[in-house]
Amino acid sequence: MKFSARQIAEFLHGELVGNPSVEVNNLSKIEEGTPGTLSFLANPKYTHYIYQTHASIVLVHKDFEPEHPIEATLIKVDDPYACLAMLLNLVNEATIAKRGIEQPNYVSSSVTLPDDIYLGAFAYIGERVKIGKNVKIYPQTYIGNDVVIGDNVTIFAGVKIYHSCVIGNNCILHAGTVIGADGFGFAPQANGEYAKIAQIGNVVLEDNVEVGANTTIDRATMGSTIIKKGVKLDNLIQIAHNVEVGEHTVIAAQAGIAGSAKVGSHAMIGGQVGVAGHIKLGDRIQVGAQSGIPNHVENDAVIMGYPAVPSKEFARQVVYVKRLPELTRTVKALEKEIEALKEQLKNNKL
Amino acid sequence: MKFSARQIAEFLHGELVGNPSVEVNNLSKIEEGTPGTLSFLANPKYTHYIYQTHASIVLVHKDFEPEHPIEATLIKVDDPYACLAMLLNLVNEATIAKRGIEQPNYVSSSVTLPDDIYLGAFAYIGERVKIGKNVKIYPQTYIGNDVVIGDNVTIFAGVKIYHSCVIGNNCILHAGTVIGADGFGFAPQANGEYAKIAQIGNVVLEDNVEVGANTTIDRATMGSTIIKKGVKLDNLIQIAHNVEVGEHTVIAAQAGIAGSAKVGSHAMIGGQVGVAGHIKLGDRIQVGAQSGIPNHVENDAVIMGYPAVPSKEFARQVVYVKRLPELTRTVKALEKEIEALKEQLKNNKL
Amino acid sequence: MKFSARQIAEFLHGELVGNPSVEVNNLSKIEEGTPGTLSFLANPKYTHYIYQTHASIVLVHKDFEPEHPIEATLIKVDDPYACLAMLLNLVNEATIAKRGIEQPNYVSSSVTLPDDIYLGAFAYIGERVKIGKNVKIYPQTYIGNDVVIGDNVTIFAGVKIYHSCVIGNNCILHAGTVIGADGFGFAPQANGEYAKIAQIGNVVLEDNVEVGANTTIDRATMGSTIIKKGVKLDNLIQIAHNVEVGEHTVIAAQAGIAGSAKVGSHAMIGGQVGVAGHIKLGDRIQVGAQSGIPNHVENDAVIMGYPAVPSKEFARQVVYVKRLPELTRTVKALEKEIEALKEQLKNNKL
Repeated sequence: MKFSARQIAEFLHGELVGNPSVEVNNLSKIEEGTPGTLSFLANPKYTHYIYQTHASIVLVHKDFEPEHPIEATLIKVDDPYACLAMLLNLVNEATIAKRGIEQPNYVSSSVTLPDDIYLGAFAYIGERVKIGKNVKIYPQTYIGNDVVIGDNVTIFAGVKIYHSCVIGNNCILHAGTVIGADGFGFAPQANGEYAKIAQIGNVVLEDNVEVGANTTIDRATMGSTIIKKGVKLDNLIQIAHNVEVGEHTVIAAQAGIAGSAKVGSHAMIGGQVGVAGHIKLGDRIQVGAQSGIPNHVENDAVIMGYPAVPSKEFARQVVYVKRLPELTRTVKALEKEIEALKEQLKNNKL
Repeated sequence: MKFSARQIAEFLHGELVGNPSVEVNNLSKIEEGTPGTLSFLANPKYTHYIYQTHASIVLVHKDFEPEHPIEATLIKVDDPYACLAMLLNLVNEATIAKRGIEQPNYVSSSVTLPDDIYLGAFAYIGERVKIGKNVKIYPQTYIGNDVVIGDNVTIFAGVKIYHSCVIGNNCILHAGTVIGADGFGFAPQANGEYAKIAQIGNVVLEDNVEVGANTTIDRATMGSTIIKKGVKLDNLIQIAHNVEVGEHTVIAAQAGIAGSAKVGSHAMIGGQVGVAGHIKLGDRIQVGAQSGIPNHVENDAVIMGYPAVPSKEFARQVVYVKRLPELTRTVKALEKEIEALKEQLKNNKL
Repeated sequence: MKFSARQIAEFLHGELVGNPSVEVNNLSKIEEGTPGTLSFLANPKYTHYIYQTHASIVLVHKDFEPEHPIEATLIKVDDPYACLAMLLNLVNEATIAKRGIEQPNYVSSSVTLPDDIYLGAFAYIGERVKIGKNVKIYPQTYIGNDVVIGDNVTIFAGVKIYHSCVIGNNCILHAGTVIGADGFGFAPQANGEYAKIAQIGNVVLEDNVEVGANTTIDRATMGSTIIKKGVKLDNLIQIAHNVEVGEHTVIAAQAGIAGSAKVGSHAMIGGQVGVAGHIKLGDRIQVGAQSGIPNHVENDAVIMGYPAVPSKEFARQVVYVKRLPELTRTVKALEKEIEALKEQLKNNKL
């Protein structure tokens, strides 16, 4: 598919500067732009690239005024990054559009598939599963009994959803994600062995949740593990049983939230962070990568470290620890000076 | 399914206080109890909830004597938590009971399926696989050639078991787990490249092992990677080649054990812990979350930190590091005082 | 399959000392050697085992001269470890040799399967996929549209490769690996929600790359996430969008590389390491396990810690932190001494 500069300018309600009939069929980064691609200039620190790029079209801010000649056709828009996102979306939807039912598949007799579904080969749909409109279920996915799936949901290849879990509207689940495996619950016995505590709750993903590849979200012992609306989870994250993650919180890859912890809304949790069980993290907190959080955290806290402290304090600690050899030398020198002073004072007295 | 308070009291050999004919069809936490559910009071710090809960039935300790009126019917038992576990188990077994062979599946001609198996659709059973009694193999699982599976094993959807591995009796493997992938073994070459060392060993899970979702246990280079009986592994754990994990040890999510390390029995390893290769961890050790363990650890050690030290020492270190700015200020002040003393002494002398 | 000591000595061009007709059918570690197995002595610190081992054959260095009688037949070679690797390879290839096309599978009509392919049951091959010679695609794998797979590639059970990704020659992908899921890209909106940025790039694995079980490598927003030739990735690793990993770099389990970071060539990255986004790590660097790397790293650096510093400095920091209680006591004592000196001086003056 090719689009002309004129078509794109119209789609984005932008102002065209240059050749309206030049065509592109792909997107590129400005520093790597090749003919036939569209690029963008959102960050001023990349401005110098616009004079060198071979991209055929560049999206720029409406206030951009070139200081040198530019080879590319420009499209001036209010927000180049937002316009880029719109174009990326267009390309993506064209690329991954899927419809129809592939064979073989396994659909339980109690299930009615919607007309507009994409159901990939080797997908498994358990008993009494409910599926909304415009849902894409990729190959080799497993949807256990009594799962409920909302509208406009995309479930990529190999996702496993255990029985009775709920997936809200507009959710996206990436390949290898496991929703609803048993929480890690065992009762220690007198003889040193562990007895399994059956986990009879479920997992609820509210609307607009995206879950990255190979992330695991365990079912609750009783009740629900809840991922609230708009939450975005990256890859390889562990969400333990009975956790709650608040609305519009984003969590980066390989973070882990232990059992029954409550994470606030609009929080940003860095990669590889660990959150202890049964604690409460406030709204809008920001947690630096690899932090370990053992205790409750107030709203709006910005924290980092192991154990986590306010990020400014963490930065100070790092500096002070670096200076420990120097501090130790200073203390040694002071000891000697004091010895000398004592000696001197003794002689003085005599 | 509904049960009356009388039926449950009889099943648990408990003493009934209240209405014997009230019925429940689900379980709840005491603070979230709703009519028609059974709840429990195991932890005394939740006692106040019993006077507010809307649960229809509450399991309590036989010595519990209410101080205020209680709406719910009580069932007094020796151990409310153990009784709850029994009820959870009952509910769970009723929910996930599976039998029969779903189509399509792939079973090698050299394999005889037991009569009582559950084999999900799209499951793959390689050559010469041996399967015990009362085994559940969920959809989309892969069982490689020459794998041996004991009795009462449950293998959830999408588990992958490479050839020649051994799964003991009563094991539970959660979705996405990979057993027996190649260990990470490469020989550096003179030219800076790496040559693969083939990994011809296997993985042995002894009896009563549970493995969480998307956990990976690599096959040994030679011999076996061994997970001893009663071990419980959480989600997203990495067990490298030739590791041994001792009996009844529990390891929390996202921990990683590097190659050839030996973990003792009855140990408790926290989430995101890292254990170096070729070291030996003692029996009954407790390791705090996110710790990094570079060296051998004695029996019964309680450790934490990066690198791990005795947990009490870690707690002290944290306090001392926090006080570093203050300590540094003190040292600076002492330097000034000593300068002043020196000055004074010089003047004194004159 | 059994081999005699004479056959093995000829295959390895080694010198035979002992019984040439003794036979073996397996390999063993020297400390666990049993009759009928071949073992090896590569590390001098294990030399004492050679006088006790029950292995039938032991590979030793050509300069090895026993100081006591040895039961086993010896084969003297230039490099026992390299010879062992050759034998391991032989055994492994015999064990996992696979050919043919299993049913059922799903192959798009636009795809031509090579004659020498192994295609496992329940594998899914999307539109326009290109597959090289001598490729093994295990059961339950998903190969999205327009994926290109080179020669001699092995893709183990359950691997998921999203559309348009490229897998070079001689690559090995272990079970559960996800290649090309969407990068974690969201634009914060004025109302506190996040809008998804479509990820239209791809992932390119160059030749001779091995990827461990359940590792995830995200597709680029635009352009490619690139894993260069000879890179070895362990299990459960996260590689974010637009990352580049340089040639012949090895990364241990559970490490995570955040978006747009560039890792140099011939680097060694330890387990559970975290690398921040948009930074550049030099060639030949060595990073200790669990380190957190927030900033650029020079070529040849050897670093460790959170945040990472030169490893020697980290070791010193650990020692100094351990001594903090002592240092603090010393400072307290100095304070007292100075008080005493001041007092003394005051009295002296009088």
